[in-house]
Amino acid sequence: MEQLKGACIIGQSGGPTSVINASAYGVIRTALDSPSITAVYGAANGIKGVLSGKLYDMSKEDPAELELLLHTPSSELGSCRYKIKDPDIDDTDYRRILEVFQKFNVRYFFYNGGNDSMDTCNKISRYMKKVGYDCRVMGVPKTIDNDLFGTDHCPGFGSAAKYIATSCAEVYKDARVYDTGMITVIEVMGRHAGWLAGSAALAGLIGCGPDLVYLPEVDFDMDKFLVDVTSIYDREGKCIVVVSEGIHYADGTFVSEAKVASSDGFGHAQLGGLAARLANIIKEKTGSKVRGIELSLLQRCGAHLASKCDVEESFLAGKTAVETAVNGGSGYMVGFERLEEDGGYTCKTKLIPLADVANYEKKVPLEWINAEKNGVTKDFAAYVLPLIQGEMEIPKDMGLPRFARLNKILAE
Amino acid sequence: MEQLKGACIIGQSGGPTSVINASAYGVIRTALDSPSITAVYGAANGIKGVLSGKLYDMSKEDPAELELLLHTPSSELGSCRYKIKDPDIDDTDYRRILEVFQKFNVRYFFYNGGNDSMDTCNKISRYMKKVGYDCRVMGVPKTIDNDLFGTDHCPGFGSAAKYIATSCAEVYKDARVYDTGMITVIEVMGRHAGWLAGSAALAGLIGCGPDLVYLPEVDFDMDKFLVDVTSIYDREGKCIVVVSEGIHYADGTFVSEAKVASSDGFGHAQLGGLAARLANIIKEKTGSKVRGIELSLLQRCGAHLASKCDVEESFLAGKTAVETAVNGGSGYMVGFERLEEDGGYTCKTKLIPLADVANYEKKVPLEWINAEKNGVTKDFAAYVLPLIQGEMEIPKDMGLPRFARLNKILAE
Repeated sequence: MEQLKGACIIGQSGGPTSVINASAYGVIRTALDSPSITAVYGAANGIKGVLSGKLYDMSKEDPAELELLLHTPSSELGSCRYKIKDPDIDDTDYRRILEVFQKFNVRYFFYNGGNDSMDTCNKISRYMKKVGYDCRVMGVPKTIDNDLFGTDHCPGFGSAAKYIATSCAEVYKDARVYDTGMITVIEVMGRHAGWLAGSAALAGLIGCGPDLVYLPEVDFDMDKFLVDVTSIYDREGKCIVVVSEGIHYADGTFVSEAKVASSDGFGHAQLGGLAARLANIIKEKTGSKVRGIELSLLQRCGAHLASKCDVEESFLAGKTAVETAVNGGSGYMVGFERLEEDGGYTCKTKLIPLADVANYEKKVPLEWINAEKNGVTKDFAAYVLPLIQGEMEIPKDMGLPRFARLNKILAE
Repeated sequence: MEQLKGACIIGQSGGPTSVINASAYGVIRTALDSPSITAVYGAANGIKGVLSGKLYDMSKEDPAELELLLHTPSSELGSCRYKIKDPDIDDTDYRRILEVFQKFNVRYFFYNGGNDSMDTCNKISRYMKKVGYDCRVMGVPKTIDNDLFGTDHCPGFGSAAKYIATSCAEVYKDARVYDTGMITVIEVMGRHAGWLAGSAALAGLIGCGPDLVYLPEVDFDMDKFLVDVTSIYDREGKCIVVVSEGIHYADGTFVSEAKVASSDGFGHAQLGGLAARLANIIKEKTGSKVRGIELSLLQRCGAHLASKCDVEESFLAGKTAVETAVNGGSGYMVGFERLEEDGGYTCKTKLIPLADVANYEKKVPLEWINAEKNGVTKDFAAYVLPLIQGEMEIPKDMGLPRFARLNKILAE
């Protein structure tokens, strides 16, 4: 494979995670160390920063600050929810991207995101090939939703799952403190896939699990739900319910839909308020004390509780993307393959064509949802458990986390 | 001082904290090791367990499991919100308590709770003295609200403050990920005292603090609030607001009042839903994207992020209560005195008469609230900062916290 010399751009896109910066660091560190890569630019707010030519020169950063990206939640370079057009219909954005690539001699493009970002990545890859601009494009996955196709699991999911399971275990303890009745409804993220909601069930492995878990993979039935809750409550005086924000009725309408107020740039409805809504319905039905808890942004930015496995794999995904591209690969997303050796978990990277990944959502297999459709099976827990293992030693500043402080000096 | 030989009871009352069990462990461990104490009983659900004679024999527990109480959130013995009557008006409960004390030869009573619990503790102490039953009664403080009189600070506060400041810093990162407008409203606990809301401002020490903080010590003015928020939002495109659940208008009505649905056993209104409510009001006013986040139970049960200072002091409070009682003290709550030696923080215990503590709420001094009434001063931060220092090494089980598993064998 012929060596391709030039600059690289790393961009971050979509909703952030606790560990997306670990992937960015995997890209940045590896690229800075690569003889083929002449400059490393961070795009401000993903593809929007490419379009506007707002690129940060990563070589101007203190290496120790860059390393702190391993522990810094959210997308440090900034993110976007910019839906790029189909180049066959409107190639305005692509011509602008090409212009910026040419100006900075960008020969490597790494895009760190979820489904929509892999679609963007794929379109740019196709366009550059079509116009004959020699550029290698790689997707670096991230999503707490764990819904990317072709990979065993996604960077970002393990840490969110660890946060959710730990928080549910702690809330379990709190919710049982009185000898009076108490029902708790915990809402977790997950529009179309129930990986996060199911992960709450891991708290059951330490005896502090939810009684009921509802995933968006199956239709939600309010009457059945109320029977489920009240029968447990009548028997035990307590009931902890976990719901995915994306649960929906058989006709496809979201249970939270009345609360929908706005939508994000991709036309997805913005959900929320489901826990409070279900809590009110249960309170009316049972007269019990009910508390709704929405884990909200906390579940995707709780880097203080990141899974070591997840941080390491996230870094690996970024590193592998650069190594693959430098060695001639292009048009792939880095994915993971799970190897179960001697009963232990190990993981190796694999490459998935971007065209296969883009816009496809991987859901929880129905056989991992229990017969009553209100919980997950042991196989589900066995799948998630290795991904939440280990904790990072978090650098601290005055008892609080020490996040990376980047200079963000614009490239000219 | 004459040696008093007999059994002890430890009870837990009121809302739980991340570290109330560290105090219970301080009592239990010290009592088990004391030659004066013949048996150590844990009351199930506080004073309710005393009244019903439901007492767990702590000598039947595995010492290693007891030690895990240091890391186990919530009140492991169970709690209650039982309002005991004034013994001069109705002494039914007290006669029953005396009966149980006599049956089990209880000569030491330790009650682990907040304001209301210290009132209970005080009434029992007075009654036992009045009827001439030789029994030493000590209060062991706990409250995330930090509102107990006579002590520099309260066990439970530091860990909640650390959780709140850390979570706010993480949310700050998340809320700035897009280059589009975003306002975030974070609701923290605190009915009448703003210690917890103010603690969010500590995130500012690492550059990730809220723009505005509203405490219940000063009247809330919705018009002024909206001006505060929109002026920051118009200038910066982002705004993070922290509100105490107890903020109220000048006439005393809670801002969250429309959402009040039920009340606890002490006649306090149960608050909640404030963040969502303010988010809606701001959204209507500004048209901006607004997210309301309620830290809910998470802030008081997040033992995975407990402050080491708080855990150690909580244990010390329990230990000191037993040592004081064994040495003849009675009718006191253990409190803390802050010593600033060589610029460093140290803390020693002190004893405060229960009668002084009961039912009095210590609020944030007005001079620690800024002139605009929308933030706290440096003095406030300097006061809280030592209390959030250090982290515990959390024992783990399958990547999740390993909580204490007690046998809870009933005493006969």
